[in-house]
Amino acid sequence: MQAAVVRNGRIRVESMPVPQPGPGEVLVRTLACGICGSDVHLFRHGARMMDMARSLGAEPDNLVDGLVMGHEFVAEVVAFGVDCTAELSAGARVCALPFTTVDGVPVTIGASNRAIGAYAEYFLLPETALIPIPADMPQDAAALTEPLAIGVHAVARAGVTDADVAVVIGCGPIGLACIAVLRERGVRTIIATDFSARRRELAGQFGAHTVLDARTTSAIAAVPAGCPAVIFECAGAAGLIGRIVREAPVGARMVVAGISSEEETFLPLLAVAKELTLVFVSFYQREEYLAALDLLQRGRIDWQSWITGRVGLAQVGEAFEWLTGSDRHAKILIEPGRE
Amino acid sequence: MQAAVVRNGRIRVESMPVPQPGPGEVLVRTLACGICGSDVHLFRHGARMMDMARSLGAEPDNLVDGLVMGHEFVAEVVAFGVDCTAELSAGARVCALPFTTVDGVPVTIGASNRAIGAYAEYFLLPETALIPIPADMPQDAAALTEPLAIGVHAVARAGVTDADVAVVIGCGPIGLACIAVLRERGVRTIIATDFSARRRELAGQFGAHTVLDARTTSAIAAVPAGCPAVIFECAGAAGLIGRIVREAPVGARMVVAGISSEEETFLPLLAVAKELTLVFVSFYQREEYLAALDLLQRGRIDWQSWITGRVGLAQVGEAFEWLTGSDRHAKILIEPGRE
Repeated sequence: MQAAVVRNGRIRVESMPVPQPGPGEVLVRTLACGICGSDVHLFRHGARMMDMARSLGAEPDNLVDGLVMGHEFVAEVVAFGVDCTAELSAGARVCALPFTTVDGVPVTIGASNRAIGAYAEYFLLPETALIPIPADMPQDAAALTEPLAIGVHAVARAGVTDADVAVVIGCGPIGLACIAVLRERGVRTIIATDFSARRRELAGQFGAHTVLDARTTSAIAAVPAGCPAVIFECAGAAGLIGRIVREAPVGARMVVAGISSEEETFLPLLAVAKELTLVFVSFYQREEYLAALDLLQRGRIDWQSWITGRVGLAQVGEAFEWLTGSDRHAKILIEPGRE
Repeated sequence: MQAAVVRNGRIRVESMPVPQPGPGEVLVRTLACGICGSDVHLFRHGARMMDMARSLGAEPDNLVDGLVMGHEFVAEVVAFGVDCTAELSAGARVCALPFTTVDGVPVTIGASNRAIGAYAEYFLLPETALIPIPADMPQDAAALTEPLAIGVHAVARAGVTDADVAVVIGCGPIGLACIAVLRERGVRTIIATDFSARRRELAGQFGAHTVLDARTTSAIAAVPAGCPAVIFECAGAAGLIGRIVREAPVGARMVVAGISSEEETFLPLLAVAKELTLVFVSFYQREEYLAALDLLQRGRIDWQSWITGRVGLAQVGEAFEWLTGSDRHAKILIEPGRE
């Protein structure tokens, strides 16, 4: 089979054997897989992340040589390993939380060299992880379940109520997911900000009530005085956490969903004086993933606007460059069968 | 009257007029007032805190010339200003949350040059703030209401349940308050750590199940694998937040009650990967203050062990040195009438 493989600082298509499902495992065929911002981050900073893991005493996965990413997938069941119940039929469309175990150790599919992800024609899932996709649900919508689940989780972890004023800093895919879920949860004031006019436009389409240009205006300063504020850091930009600590109003909660490998510096005295809460988020619970699938199925999310590009496996490297260098794209889907 | 006044980097007794209660205000006589770690911090770093406020665009109070601190007080009603209901009688013993308004602006009593605190023979409280102290409650116990309320608040803000393993880093007065409240709330594993043998001994008396020497052992590493952890940072030591972020187990909540004027640096990627929550605390709600008073009145807190010294106004400067330079003391009470 073909797969897009990280090797020597590049992403290239390579041939590799179709993986064989072990006990309790299912071979699936990738229908579509989104490129996640964390994939781009992993690609650019894999070596540093390995160093960081080593400095913490862990033996890191090899993230720079032979990695097959892809955790935002929709796939089709092909074959079952032994010890499967095989309740689903071959051909059934599924998605899944991207977690498995390898030799008894929990592993994230597509973020480890021990479990290849969906930047490939085929990959493996634990049968217990399979979530069938409703027949009437478009494949594209299902492919967005995973990033939307991040938004469901981030909003839940912040304990957002409809009395809160929400500020979303950074309107990439995760920021858009947060905006969509905040709107769905009935939050009446959603202030979004980004440097990019294109992303600001998407933020408005996704439900932000106020959209501000980050180059000229502080979104936090736009929170009406005395209102409880919850600030979503979805940009991962260096220095942003310290700035939010400085600007946040008293009692604000900050949800950090952005990914940065840099150290961040802030003044704890300010955070204490203002009684801030910082909630760091990654991934989601199963029920949050299912809630995201449900929102998409019920047409509550403008997923068509979210998808701004499609590539085959051969264009994955190029798509990573688009996502790094321009603001044209929100979510790019990889379709392995695509030429 | 006499007051202990911060001026020119020292704390000296000065004479000043007895303040006159304005509308809705009550003149009270200080019976006892604890020295808070934040007072020591304010005394040592007042100039820097003023600079910090200026850098944030605020016009700071003068914290270095003429400040009368003291917010952990028990006092006696002396006289009422106009527009008071005067439901309490002169001579009634009271405590209060240390907040007032001056010219319509909220001010913390004893942490502003606009509202002198209880390091003085007399000071002013809003009548609405007065909380009468039960007749059978020792004055010393009542004086500890304020610092205990910090512990009540910190534990509440962390959403601690009896399934949590609690780690308390730093066993000064706030650490001890947290330990006492955690024990009272039924937490079954409380691990405390400090550099000082004296403070470790107090931690054990206050209810810590395990007490570890911070010089040799990581208290966080002592959390049993897989247990939900809540880590109380009560030391305010430089670099501690970054270290806790590195060492904390997955899903840990960190409550930052320690006060440091230094910048702190940490790796947000680690906090994201582990889904940490950082909760910064200062002060408390009124119901938390009342809960602290109730705990003390019901004899649920070992307040006798907490009080390690008593001074008159003339020894306040010396007491600040004791608190900075040695580990002999936990809480020192100022009794203005004491010679």
